[in-house]
Amino acid sequence: MVGDRPEDLTAALADGLGADLCVVSGGLGPTHDDRTVEALAAVSGRKVEVDGALESEIEAFSRAAAERLGRQYADFATGVTKQASLPVGATVLGLAGTAPAFLLELDGCVVVVLPGPPDELRRLWPRALEHPAVEAVIARGRRRAHRVLRFFGPSESALARALAEAGGEDEAVEATVCARDFEIHLDLLVEPGGEKRARALEEALRGAFPNELFSTDERRVEELVLEACRERGYTLATAETATGGLVGARLTGVAGASDVYVGGTIAYSNEAKCAELDVPAELLRAHGAVSAETASAMASGARRRFGAQLAVSVTGIAGPGGGTREKPVGLVFLAVESPDGESTEKIVIPGDRDRVRTRATVIALHLVRRHLGTAGHTPE
Amino acid sequence: MVGDRPEDLTAALADGLGADLCVVSGGLGPTHDDRTVEALAAVSGRKVEVDGALESEIEAFSRAAAERLGRQYADFATGVTKQASLPVGATVLGLAGTAPAFLLELDGCVVVVLPGPPDELRRLWPRALEHPAVEAVIARGRRRAHRVLRFFGPSESALARALAEAGGEDEAVEATVCARDFEIHLDLLVEPGGEKRARALEEALRGAFPNELFSTDERRVEELVLEACRERGYTLATAETATGGLVGARLTGVAGASDVYVGGTIAYSNEAKCAELDVPAELLRAHGAVSAETASAMASGARRRFGAQLAVSVTGIAGPGGGTREKPVGLVFLAVESPDGESTEKIVIPGDRDRVRTRATVIALHLVRRHLGTAGHTPE
Repeated sequence: MVGDRPEDLTAALADGLGADLCVVSGGLGPTHDDRTVEALAAVSGRKVEVDGALESEIEAFSRAAAERLGRQYADFATGVTKQASLPVGATVLGLAGTAPAFLLELDGCVVVVLPGPPDELRRLWPRALEHPAVEAVIARGRRRAHRVLRFFGPSESALARALAEAGGEDEAVEATVCARDFEIHLDLLVEPGGEKRARALEEALRGAFPNELFSTDERRVEELVLEACRERGYTLATAETATGGLVGARLTGVAGASDVYVGGTIAYSNEAKCAELDVPAELLRAHGAVSAETASAMASGARRRFGAQLAVSVTGIAGPGGGTREKPVGLVFLAVESPDGESTEKIVIPGDRDRVRTRATVIALHLVRRHLGTAGHTPE
Repeated sequence: MVGDRPEDLTAALADGLGADLCVVSGGLGPTHDDRTVEALAAVSGRKVEVDGALESEIEAFSRAAAERLGRQYADFATGVTKQASLPVGATVLGLAGTAPAFLLELDGCVVVVLPGPPDELRRLWPRALEHPAVEAVIARGRRRAHRVLRFFGPSESALARALAEAGGEDEAVEATVCARDFEIHLDLLVEPGGEKRARALEEALRGAFPNELFSTDERRVEELVLEACRERGYTLATAETATGGLVGARLTGVAGASDVYVGGTIAYSNEAKCAELDVPAELLRAHGAVSAETASAMASGARRRFGAQLAVSVTGIAGPGGGTREKPVGLVFLAVESPDGESTEKIVIPGDRDRVRTRATVIALHLVRRHLGTAGHTPE
């Protein structure tokens, strides 16, 4: 990551040009502090020139945008010329919004420049991959197979130890252990000929953590949950307090979630828990809003209210305030209810508000996954 | 950002040691691919030694964690010794979890090494700032004032043009324009003596965008919304379809939200819109789930259901499926209802599912802010 200062940009690009392929993103916007083009031109000793065809294309896009927004085109004109200015010799790969992607072939280095906004980058990246210059670099590269193992439950240390006991990494298999999103992701990069060794490692780890290994591909836990519900013909509802909608947001982030997920209630106040999730007021008085009893009642209430086969609930104390000696910040109760029965969990999550909320969300999703028995990969 | 490969790490650290202060985060974990200490030792020509006192501290922490998790301490032992190993001459700044923060004074460079997890980093960073070696570097530095202007509405281009017309940046004031989270953030870095110039720039931009400049500090829009409600004694509820809980999640991400935010409904299915938000079935049939009428009915329903003074609703088509010629992917209707009346908005958001959802969430929050008239900074 490089800031906007010209000297930082030229230093980073000069570094990058030492590689066979240098991929740059961002700094292509209309404002003066978007300096990728001028920095790349300076480092590669090229002039910057306006590309006429590109300018027309960006102008057309900007005029339409100006009209849609009810603004004058004059506001955009300077930016259009700037965004159509490229180092001499550059090949335009395509346009997303007003920013172009382009490619520059230098002596010993192919430079691919992409817009910064993630969806624009994603849209234009395939164009770069199709370009003969990029294809040629990739054809020269080392091809390694990639195996993904995802675990929920074991610590990073325990996994590293199991990996070491299975022989650890060597010249044939590079292993990366990474704690991400409160899961442990193990990536194996396998040289040609290392497949047997990688399979042995995978089997050893599956033996050590048969219930914790939940995925051997890139699907996220919310996708696994939705697929497991879909397979059983279940619909799904949520009931949240501390996570405030994060469980619903993760589930509905998956395209096509609507055939499984019917809805949820964010019951932040106690009144809402009673009125919208039918949690009995006396139960709240007796056990408190953050309790196993309330979690169960919330799951039952959501299931009935939304007419769903399965409902998951989360109630907890996200902090920084609201904790007591008996019920500290980070205390979270979760419940899943379905025709298969009930699963519950109680945990105290260390860390700040953000960490408590995001981790409780991940635990809720994995609780549903385990409830549905979708470990998917049982030991052989 | 540097990967785990030893040669990448040593190259990046060698670069960093050219600065007066080099701050490193991450790579302090218990596994073999956490290599910050060994890389720093290699680059600075120091040996690595186990710090006995530190080892005891990490061991105590790990034994407690092992007990809590019902695991053997043996799983942790190797990691503990690794995490207590530091370059000779390092000063321990503190411990968060099992990873230590430490400081190393080299010839011409002070190196601060912090754990990677954001909350651990945040907790230990103040210790680094208090260390005399870091204080000395900062005292030698240039002190620039920082002004923040946040806009919602104008394009990055329009803002850049207004900035240029006001004289633009110069030696006294450095300006950075950045589109972030669908807002435009303008940062002014002001040299001593540049204050008058910075004030003039700020006033010119306020004159150009009186209603779009919504904040001159670092508070996020959800904080402004909660504060505006609090000032009026309003409680707040949400009703969401396409955003699936993201509006609730943003609001409840703010500590202390519970005195304003009472709850919300994620009404993903049409049945849930009728049963849980009292949207009339005939209204849904006549206008569809994604319509101005449904957005209004959802806001009214949430307001009544949750007994809130103010409710905000979002209904839309997040995509990639579900669009039609009349109602394309990205079409979103929003409504706010309160004792002050109703505010509504209709927009077609370009981009993928993730972008439609996050941008609709930001628009919803700003619609509430504007509804409450909390621009906060009117032109002078």
